Amino acid sequence: MIASTTFSAGEILALWAVLGTAVVGLLYAGFLMAQVLREDKGTAEMQKISSSIRVGANAYLVRQFKTIAFLILLLTAVLYFTAGEKHIAIGRACAFLMGSIFSATVGFVGMNLAVRGNVRVAAAAARGSFSDALKIAYRTGTITGMLTDGLGLLGGTCIFMIYGERAYEVLLGFGFGGTLLALFMRVGGGIFTKAADVGADLVGKIEKNIPEDDPRNAATIADNVGDNVGDCAGMAADIFESYEVTIVSAMILGWASYGHKGVIFPLLVRAIGVIASIVGTYAVRTKEEVRDAMKAINIGFLISAFVSIAGFMAVGFFYLRSAAWTSALPGWATLGIAGLDFRPVWATLVGILLAVTINRLTEYFTDTNKPPVKSVAESCQTGHATAIITGFAVGLESTVWAIFVIAIAILLSAFIYQGTNPTFVAYGVSMAGIGMLTLTGNNISMDVFGPVADNANGIGEMARLPKPARQILADLDAVGNTTKAITKGIAIASAVVAAISLFNAYITDISALTRMTYAEIAAMLSVSDHNVFVGLLIGGAIPFLFSSLTIKAVGRAAFLIVKEVREQLKDKDVWEGKKLPDYARVVSICTAAAQKELIRPGLLAILTPLFVGLVLKKEALGGFLAGMILSGQLLAVFMANAGGAWDNAKKLIEDGIFGGKGSDAHKASVTGDTVGDPLKDTAGPALNPLIKVMNMVALLAIPIVVRLEHSAGGMIVGAAIGVFLLFILLHKPKPSREELEIIQKAA
Amino acid sequence: MIASTTFSAGEILALWAVLGTAVVGLLYAGFLMAQVLREDKGTAEMQKISSSIRVGANAYLVRQFKTIAFLILLLTAVLYFTAGEKHIAIGRACAFLMGSIFSATVGFVGMNLAVRGNVRVAAAAARGSFSDALKIAYRTGTITGMLTDGLGLLGGTCIFMIYGERAYEVLLGFGFGGTLLALFMRVGGGIFTKAADVGADLVGKIEKNIPEDDPRNAATIADNVGDNVGDCAGMAADIFESYEVTIVSAMILGWASYGHKGVIFPLLVRAIGVIASIVGTYAVRTKEEVRDAMKAINIGFLISAFVSIAGFMAVGFFYLRSAAWTSALPGWATLGIAGLDFRPVWATLVGILLAVTINRLTEYFTDTNKPPVKSVAESCQTGHATAIITGFAVGLESTVWAIFVIAIAILLSAFIYQGTNPTFVAYGVSMAGIGMLTLTGNNISMDVFGPVADNANGIGEMARLPKPARQILADLDAVGNTTKAITKGIAIASAVVAAISLFNAYITDISALTRMTYAEIAAMLSVSDHNVFVGLLIGGAIPFLFSSLTIKAVGRAAFLIVKEVREQLKDKDVWEGKKLPDYARVVSICTAAAQKELIRPGLLAILTPLFVGLVLKKEALGGFLAGMILSGQLLAVFMANAGGAWDNAKKLIEDGIFGGKGSDAHKASVTGDTVGDPLKDTAGPALNPLIKVMNMVALLAIPIVVRLEHSAGGMIVGAAIGVFLLFILLHKPKPSREELEIIQKAA
Repeated sequence: MIASTTFSAGEILALWAVLGTAVVGLLYAGFLMAQVLREDKGTAEMQKISSSIRVGANAYLVRQFKTIAFLILLLTAVLYFTAGEKHIAIGRACAFLMGSIFSATVGFVGMNLAVRGNVRVAAAAARGSFSDALKIAYRTGTITGMLTDGLGLLGGTCIFMIYGERAYEVLLGFGFGGTLLALFMRVGGGIFTKAADVGADLVGKIEKNIPEDDPRNAATIADNVGDNVGDCAGMAADIFESYEVTIVSAMILGWASYGHKGVIFPLLVRAIGVIASIVGTYAVRTKEEVRDAMKAINIGFLISAFVSIAGFMAVGFFYLRSAAWTSALPGWATLGIAGLDFRPVWATLVGILLAVTINRLTEYFTDTNKPPVKSVAESCQTGHATAIITGFAVGLESTVWAIFVIAIAILLSAFIYQGTNPTFVAYGVSMAGIGMLTLTGNNISMDVFGPVADNANGIGEMARLPKPARQILADLDAVGNTTKAITKGIAIASAVVAAISLFNAYITDISALTRMTYAEIAAMLSVSDHNVFVGLLIGGAIPFLFSSLTIKAVGRAAFLIVKEVREQLKDKDVWEGKKLPDYARVVSICTAAAQKELIRPGLLAILTPLFVGLVLKKEALGGFLAGMILSGQLLAVFMANAGGAWDNAKKLIEDGIFGGKGSDAHKASVTGDTVGDPLKDTAGPALNPLIKVMNMVALLAIPIVVRLEHSAGGMIVGAAIGVFLLFILLHKPKPSREELEIIQKAA
Repeated sequence: MIASTTFSAGEILALWAVLGTAVVGLLYAGFLMAQVLREDKGTAEMQKISSSIRVGANAYLVRQFKTIAFLILLLTAVLYFTAGEKHIAIGRACAFLMGSIFSATVGFVGMNLAVRGNVRVAAAAARGSFSDALKIAYRTGTITGMLTDGLGLLGGTCIFMIYGERAYEVLLGFGFGGTLLALFMRVGGGIFTKAADVGADLVGKIEKNIPEDDPRNAATIADNVGDNVGDCAGMAADIFESYEVTIVSAMILGWASYGHKGVIFPLLVRAIGVIASIVGTYAVRTKEEVRDAMKAINIGFLISAFVSIAGFMAVGFFYLRSAAWTSALPGWATLGIAGLDFRPVWATLVGILLAVTINRLTEYFTDTNKPPVKSVAESCQTGHATAIITGFAVGLESTVWAIFVIAIAILLSAFIYQGTNPTFVAYGVSMAGIGMLTLTGNNISMDVFGPVADNANGIGEMARLPKPARQILADLDAVGNTTKAITKGIAIASAVVAAISLFNAYITDISALTRMTYAEIAAMLSVSDHNVFVGLLIGGAIPFLFSSLTIKAVGRAAFLIVKEVREQLKDKDVWEGKKLPDYARVVSICTAAAQKELIRPGLLAILTPLFVGLVLKKEALGGFLAGMILSGQLLAVFMANAGGAWDNAKKLIEDGIFGGKGSDAHKASVTGDTVGDPLKDTAGPALNPLIKVMNMVALLAIPIVVRLEHSAGGMIVGAAIGVFLLFILLHKPKPSREELEIIQKAA
């Protein structure tokens, strides 16, 4: 099975151990699944509501998969032709398919569990048990977390075992599959969730003054579906992708620097992360009388972090001994032990430190108890405009600190590898990425916990559960909002670190393809070169363009929902609660709109790097990637944190300060929250997969770019792509017959 | 007088011709000044209002100059020590002083004329003459325009004549002086103008429902003062600076590529621009029955453009003959004439094309008749939040197109110089910058026309002029808003092109200092280097940080104004119009707040490049500059155009659509406008001088960085600067005694 590469017996053992751990992770997911499904499903009414959400969510995903299935199959074929040798070509195409199927599975299974878990959480709350409700909600999240861990590790390890030193060529396909699917899930899910949310709120809360999740609001089921589609399926696919992409780049760079050990070490680190996540997530529980969900979740996180760090050090201590690397290393790099190179361990610890710091930063800028959110809430007193301006300034500032922290992490990784060559430095950065995503299992548990708790709260409201149950659900929902916000910070930062690693892999790849030395490539990728600079400018512009497209898409889709909900509320029976509104119709409008709107940004993501590479050459493509990472990070964190700050400023006011609910300050804070919604839940999160997709496309296209860049054919293909892109950008999407009908009916 | 460099007789003649043209420009400014001052000053009441504005504006500028005088003197001394040889050191220090004094003069004189022109425009309108009102307003603007042209050209030419081939070392001082002053004028003026504006609007329009410029509003004079301080003095200093900086970089790069001719040609081009501006601006007039101000201004612009293009071609045709350069140039580059190198002319034409395209783009995204503004106005119907989101998306999109256009201009310049070395390409880009700013005289006339017309309108309202006069003034004010917006686009794009030229000059400078070859420097500045990448990340973050600081500063200052105006309106006599409010007190609060708030961003601009250079070395500084240019451009255009779109969406609704004034849609549009104000008039415009200041600091500091970067001393100084910067950022500005008093009084 293992191809041309020879592994030592120890290595084979290590690889099987990793593979075994991946399987253990999947089995643990199965065990939790059985556990959750065994729980009480509540009353018939609750089950009916939950089943509406489930049906809607599944309808959405099925339609989404159908929409992109053709593209995936087309790209599978295209990928087959990007590799020269047949066995690599087949491997890459299959790996691409596997990556996209894995990513889809994580999203699909995770979401399906979430929509089954929500009603069980509500039922536990109805029984009055806070601890059961917390446990079910969190474990539902952990299922997705362990699926991500298990499938990500399984895929990478298998490919490495089969293809050995050629593995990275195949791994590119695996990474690209996951990334591309995540992009579509993020964009489509993001548009769905916010169109439903904004549509439900504009008519329900603002026009008709009825509470959130009021059963008369036709968009309320769509809103709950949206939470699952966007926050659960989208986010899970996104993090799965970062998890994959970091291992792909670590393996490419590990091979180029340390050889075998450079590849196997990150796999071992990942395996430890799986064990650590199992231990830590299982520990999340609270006594019935304490009822502090946040504390329980944090303790679980700390346990996992502790197990990971201990594990890394142990593995490093035993595995990283090899006299060949240790010429003249300083004491801290060898722990004073001859033959030991402890530097990869230090790099992973930098990653864990980075994750913790980013968590604290996100918390600082979006927590209700900290000055930034307080300042936004205060400014709500002087009106809508000042609320917006203050949140805007908070967002701008937060992204600066996040980028500083990432810059310091890069410098630390480089410091660890000072005096070596750039490939080692790049490996250090990618190991920091591996370290950062070690606790992916915990992160995803925390994230998916959010929509599960949110949905359970919605079911509680719609099924009119008694007050004590509602209190439990409201408390869990509030904690879910915090955990969701924290995960968002990690998701973005990890995307940036992953993208930087991919970018380094891009450089390594050019070197392999063109037989240029590193110094020659460096000279080629200089910002002093006008082509690189132009690439930088264009790359920097893409996240702005992409955000503009997705924000406008939400606006268009929300407009349709508003019209539809208004129309349905005109029915007197619906308004008086005698008849249920047609929930499914709103879900289907959202679904159709989201599918239509994801095509333009999707094509933009895939085609722009090809255009830049073919028309402006590989050096411009390098500048393009750098510019895109920079502005993508700046914009993504800005949008996430400004949105988070507005959201929590509203919560703060709803808790009673500055006049509380119904006051003018509250109205201003609702405006802030509504502005922030498409930024933090659609445009911002979609930038994570965007920057990774573009990097992946660049990596896959570089052999073609190198072959074609000085030929007339390449220029013609590039120009054709450029014209097509221009057409996409200038072409305004026309309303469909269905949309026109909605618009006319409402007019 | 002319030092070690020998000029040919023809060259000396050319230089004296340029110098003569500069003087002609200044004389023309003097001629217009006499003409404007000769006009009728209107009634005693009008004069009284105008004089309040004038006194306030002068008080502001005097205080501003006092605040920064110490820093300027300190930096003059510091600059003396940045140059090695004594005569260069003295030259640089003097040039720095001259640059800052020239920049201050342009702002000071221009503003003083604007505050005298405004009442004369109002008087002409009171006489019922549209054509006189237009002529006076526009010519008042032209005075500043010609001052900019004349002083900019005079300074650069004199320095070149005195220092010959060492001129660029001295020119750096000249450029830095102008740039630094522009930064302070922009930041201080921007904070003043928006604090006054937002403060006046929040209490007047929103709380008390009284019209803009109502005499009972204590902030109304401050608001009019602000227009002059921000739009007139700030903008004039800003464009003066771009005008200077482009000539500095063109001269540095011209010397390195073509030698003498490379330096003298841009001076000749500039001289032609002066003549063209005189001809074109003088032609701006309209018949009394036509009353189309925009058309008259556009015709003037076209005449200038035509004269320039004809002039460039003629000068190029005669001046750019030299057999040495023409080996194997294609036909279009020689016009088929042996010995002619027409490429610099083509590059300047690219610049003119760039200016025209940017004008059209800005117009498209901010004009009331075009889809973007219409879409924002439409979205105002569904509330405050949708109004904000749509404007936000419009801004994001507009910045993408602007950057694409700049990228294309760079590629065209590079195409013109294809097959040569990077210095020639850089010269081509800088000549595009020269071409772009050819019509600076016209641009500034159009820009200053804005606040003059706005103020005249304010005076008309406060002096309760009859209806026909008010209509004339309102029409001119509306045209002024459009011309101001157009100039803003040019100012940003020219700042970016200037910054790119400076960046190229930075590279040329490293080469001169370190005797590294271009290829070695290129390799050093590779985005594949982790230091460069970290520099890129930090540089990209700075515009976000800077914007956050200035936006928050506006908020704090506006808060004080709101309290003060509310307090003054509590006086019954003021409210009933029996007693005038204390206008001067509001002006003085604004002044104090603006001065206090400009220190932190100012220090950030000067010290960050030093920190990056000393701690992370010169390669990181290169990445820093590139990242800063990229994100500065993206953010500046985003803020300018989003702000412009919101502003004009409000105007569109006030013209009667979607319910007109007083409707809910109108309220949402006021929110949009208020959000846009600090973005488009404070944070956005301040980014232009910011990116140039940082580039200038880098250029000046590079010899020190090169000398100190590997020494412990450099590291210590750099770290100390870093700690100081961190202190500045984390230190919250404490309210002064005056502020505390205002807050307590209002409480």
